[in-house]
Amino acid sequence: MKLALKEAEKAQKIDEVPVGCVIVKDDQVIARGHNQKETKQQSILHAEIVAIQKASKKLGTWNLKDCDLYVTLEPCMMCTGAIVLSRIRGIYYGTQDPKGGCTDTLIDIRKIDRLNHHPEIHSGIMKQECADILKNFFKNKRIQKKKLQNIES
Amino acid sequence: MKLALKEAEKAQKIDEVPVGCVIVKDDQVIARGHNQKETKQQSILHAEIVAIQKASKKLGTWNLKDCDLYVTLEPCMMCTGAIVLSRIRGIYYGTQDPKGGCTDTLIDIRKIDRLNHHPEIHSGIMKQECADILKNFFKNKRIQKKKLQNIES
Repeated sequence: MKLALKEAEKAQKIDEVPVGCVIVKDDQVIARGHNQKETKQQSILHAEIVAIQKASKKLGTWNLKDCDLYVTLEPCMMCTGAIVLSRIRGIYYGTQDPKGGCTDTLIDIRKIDRLNHHPEIHSGIMKQECADILKNFFKNKRIQKKKLQNIES
Repeated sequence: MKLALKEAEKAQKIDEVPVGCVIVKDDQVIARGHNQKETKQQSILHAEIVAIQKASKKLGTWNLKDCDLYVTLEPCMMCTGAIVLSRIRGIYYGTQDPKGGCTDTLIDIRKIDRLNHHPEIHSGIMKQECADILKNFFKNKRIQKKKLQNIES
């Protein structure tokens, strides 16, 4: 998760919501990703999707069955769906997302029997650090916004 | 939906599960996509994701708020999530997917209040044609499999 946090820092440096992800196979990191949605103006470029694409490219297969995914924030609906489709073995996430988390918050995929794959779900890994980087990012955004409003008024 | 079916035929020709998609803005088709999962060995390359990427590239923004998406099969969890994230106005799909559909079958996104966008959902557009192309594809797959088994035994 430390490496996923480093990826989140990369996102922060380019003014993206700081979420980072790594994919591990046989104790080796095979792919890394950070949020690039605004930079590339593509809604799909969440950290997990970037990492899944890289992992499949590296292994030459869409099937990531022996891989585990570490991500700082609970995956959204799109990313959870992509993880299921990729047959990723385990999801390890940092902090819950009460607004958009679709692993076990807004949706609990363990309860959807008909999904053809159910990854293990492990949450709360380095929870505080993963939450803090997001909190600080949005706090700074609010401060910047206020400063701008003060200049304009 | 006729154009989405043409995209599904393109998938069929390259031995992919025949699903096709188009995105429309101001009565103009701005992006097309067909399933390329096996060809490119990327689990994320469903017809909808391919089309969403193209539409964002064309418009220069991740925000597809005035766009409608036509797809032959009900979107899965990943694609439904991507549609929500892209702020697409309306989903028009052909046939339901009882195994993986996450628009209003396994999940009904209209019931998840906390999602920050709720696209309109229209289903059953050219339902029979959209279902038939899938049924025929899987029927042919079964016939091919039996032939192979007969040769091997």
